[in-house]
Amino acid sequence: MDPRTELFVKMVIDAWTKELNATSALLEKVSDVQLMTEVAPSRNRGIYLVGHLIAEHDVMMPLLRFQPALYPELKPLFIDAPDRAIAELPSLPQLRAQWRTVSDTLMQHIARLPAEDWFTRHANISEGDFPKEPHRNRLNVLLSRTSHLAYHRGQLVLLASK
Amino acid sequence: MDPRTELFVKMVIDAWTKELNATSALLEKVSDVQLMTEVAPSRNRGIYLVGHLIAEHDVMMPLLRFQPALYPELKPLFIDAPDRAIAELPSLPQLRAQWRTVSDTLMQHIARLPAEDWFTRHANISEGDFPKEPHRNRLNVLLSRTSHLAYHRGQLVLLASK
Repeated sequence: MDPRTELFVKMVIDAWTKELNATSALLEKVSDVQLMTEVAPSRNRGIYLVGHLIAEHDVMMPLLRFQPALYPELKPLFIDAPDRAIAELPSLPQLRAQWRTVSDTLMQHIARLPAEDWFTRHANISEGDFPKEPHRNRLNVLLSRTSHLAYHRGQLVLLASK
Repeated sequence: MDPRTELFVKMVIDAWTKELNATSALLEKVSDVQLMTEVAPSRNRGIYLVGHLIAEHDVMMPLLRFQPALYPELKPLFIDAPDRAIAELPSLPQLRAQWRTVSDTLMQHIARLPAEDWFTRHANISEGDFPKEPHRNRLNVLLSRTSHLAYHRGQLVLLASK
């Protein structure tokens, strides 16, 4: 294997891990009361963004061909529906626990996947089509989810006390 | 050259380009009046975030060893100082023009750099130290600036009309 493959995989995993850890640290700082507030007038509430990130990261598990999602019941609440469409959301203590479980489970799978395997297909492309679109690999999922996480972390940080 | 090198350089450039284009499209949609508003109560104004992104992207040019920064005068206003510390900022029409110039100039350099060269050192590490820290390469600059851009785009979007 080209040693550069290992370097590149490490760069992408490090960028993801940095974002994930920064978000975990932010969530430790933000209270349940703050998370019930909108990040800006008439925008998503913190609780919705937290649920959205958990649901999106949970979906990464089957997409990366690691394992089935742990909490598929979150998808209708936090991906398919916008904030406030669903009256009854899970409690913040429950969401905080799910954030940690999904983050830890994902990180364990990520750490175990050999560098070479990151360049194999993700679950949304068939083996037949993959050779024509080799960028639709597992590493690219991690890359795009890193930007997605940074985007929403930039919003959640607005709820934190200065 | 390993064909994978070209694939992953393309993956990172595509992720950057997607964020940059999404931000340019957002700035087309957001008015000067909206950009004079804080993204959330007591937080940065849009104008500051736009200037901050221009200044940060401008600094990428010497960091990537492309060319000197085009507008070094923006760094004291938008990187070294927080919002509202400087009373007199450039006008929004000027900042919009600078955003486009910096974006276009960067993209031209990015498109021209051979895949192989992305794995050479960025300007903040010496040739002597680079072999010990090969992740401090030019591609990693683009990777980390993509997350940075996504983070602030998540904030700027709060100013747009729904």
